[in-house]
Amino acid sequence: MSRIAQIRQNILKKNDLLAAELRTAFASTGVTVMNLVSSPGAGKTLLLESTLRQLQPKYAVAVLVGDLATDRDAQRLSRAASRVQQITTGTVCHLDADMIAAAIKGWPLDAIDFLFIENVGNLVCPASYDVGETARVVLLSVTEGEDKPLKYPTIFNGADFALITKMDLAQAVGFRRDEVHANVHEVAPALTIREVSAKTGEGIESWLRTLEEIRNGSAALS
Amino acid sequence: MSRIAQIRQNILKKNDLLAAELRTAFASTGVTVMNLVSSPGAGKTLLLESTLRQLQPKYAVAVLVGDLATDRDAQRLSRAASRVQQITTGTVCHLDADMIAAAIKGWPLDAIDFLFIENVGNLVCPASYDVGETARVVLLSVTEGEDKPLKYPTIFNGADFALITKMDLAQAVGFRRDEVHANVHEVAPALTIREVSAKTGEGIESWLRTLEEIRNGSAALS
Repeated sequence: MSRIAQIRQNILKKNDLLAAELRTAFASTGVTVMNLVSSPGAGKTLLLESTLRQLQPKYAVAVLVGDLATDRDAQRLSRAASRVQQITTGTVCHLDADMIAAAIKGWPLDAIDFLFIENVGNLVCPASYDVGETARVVLLSVTEGEDKPLKYPTIFNGADFALITKMDLAQAVGFRRDEVHANVHEVAPALTIREVSAKTGEGIESWLRTLEEIRNGSAALS
Repeated sequence: MSRIAQIRQNILKKNDLLAAELRTAFASTGVTVMNLVSSPGAGKTLLLESTLRQLQPKYAVAVLVGDLATDRDAQRLSRAASRVQQITTGTVCHLDADMIAAAIKGWPLDAIDFLFIENVGNLVCPASYDVGETARVVLLSVTEGEDKPLKYPTIFNGADFALITKMDLAQAVGFRRDEVHANVHEVAPALTIREVSAKTGEGIESWLRTLEEIRNGSAALS
């Protein structure tokens, strides 16, 4: 193994250990943690805005949001949730367990029901980094093209749930549903796929139900 | 400096040296090399299909296309250009000078006018890797959101030219032109921006003219 491959393996191993500790801490305090991954502009923030507004009457919700630069998403989301923190990664193209641990230091986990982690917009880097989440959701917007699951298999294969977003644009872009479902299932045969539009509200109720099922352990995840 | 930062710096330094050699080889044989970078699904391949068809009567055009997995793009593009090669990167989220040098080994550079390099779809990793190109073009589709230049400043700052793609969807997504131009120019003040739709042909003539200006050295690049 090359020196770089060795160092990379050590980093991932260390990350996995810390992520396992986080997972234990989240489980013991009753926090359901959702790790949202996608390419840039797939609609993570808009989906979260809608999700937060509808979960909050019933649940205490917190958000960590990762970006290379700016705290724009945290600003957007802070209008919809009380506990929102931006993690600015500089040149790093993913969040890792260490960043999450540092960001939640001092948080009263007992008082939080859902923690949403909006990962850095990237279809490659976040795939390798466990952040202690309960479930990982990969988002793919209808505008990105039906071939993306085949071209970025790892991130689909590592996800527990898939959301096709921006369904309001499906007709305008000539979205081929059968093809994208077939491509997702070629690389991740058991992955459940749901279709949503945060703009029109299509599929949001089903998504909220899935979140509650993940929280109470009854969801069928891949 | 940490051991990882040190190794990374050495890798980039080695890449820069090899890229400089490539640039000299391309210049001395009259190959104009365009490095196309964007997030996944911004429309690089469709734009290339259209570009190749229109350049080919007059110019000899070759293409290198990078993806983590599959040779779908090479297959698509080989219908429009005679010399197309896929570079499959595995888990690597960018092309580098070494991959380009290996891919063009034995190519008759003298017989090629334009070489298009379709980089891996990623707004982070390709920003750091010079591949010996004449000009780097960053693509941003109207569906990705106006904030992307602020969130991924490095890739915009390192580009010579910007294309806003999928203009046919501008109205459907409520594209805010002034905002995206302002955001691009906040991180890359001198970057020229053009708007195109490979679907309707909007802006393609101007893009082809730009390519010819880059080739004959009269283009105003940032």
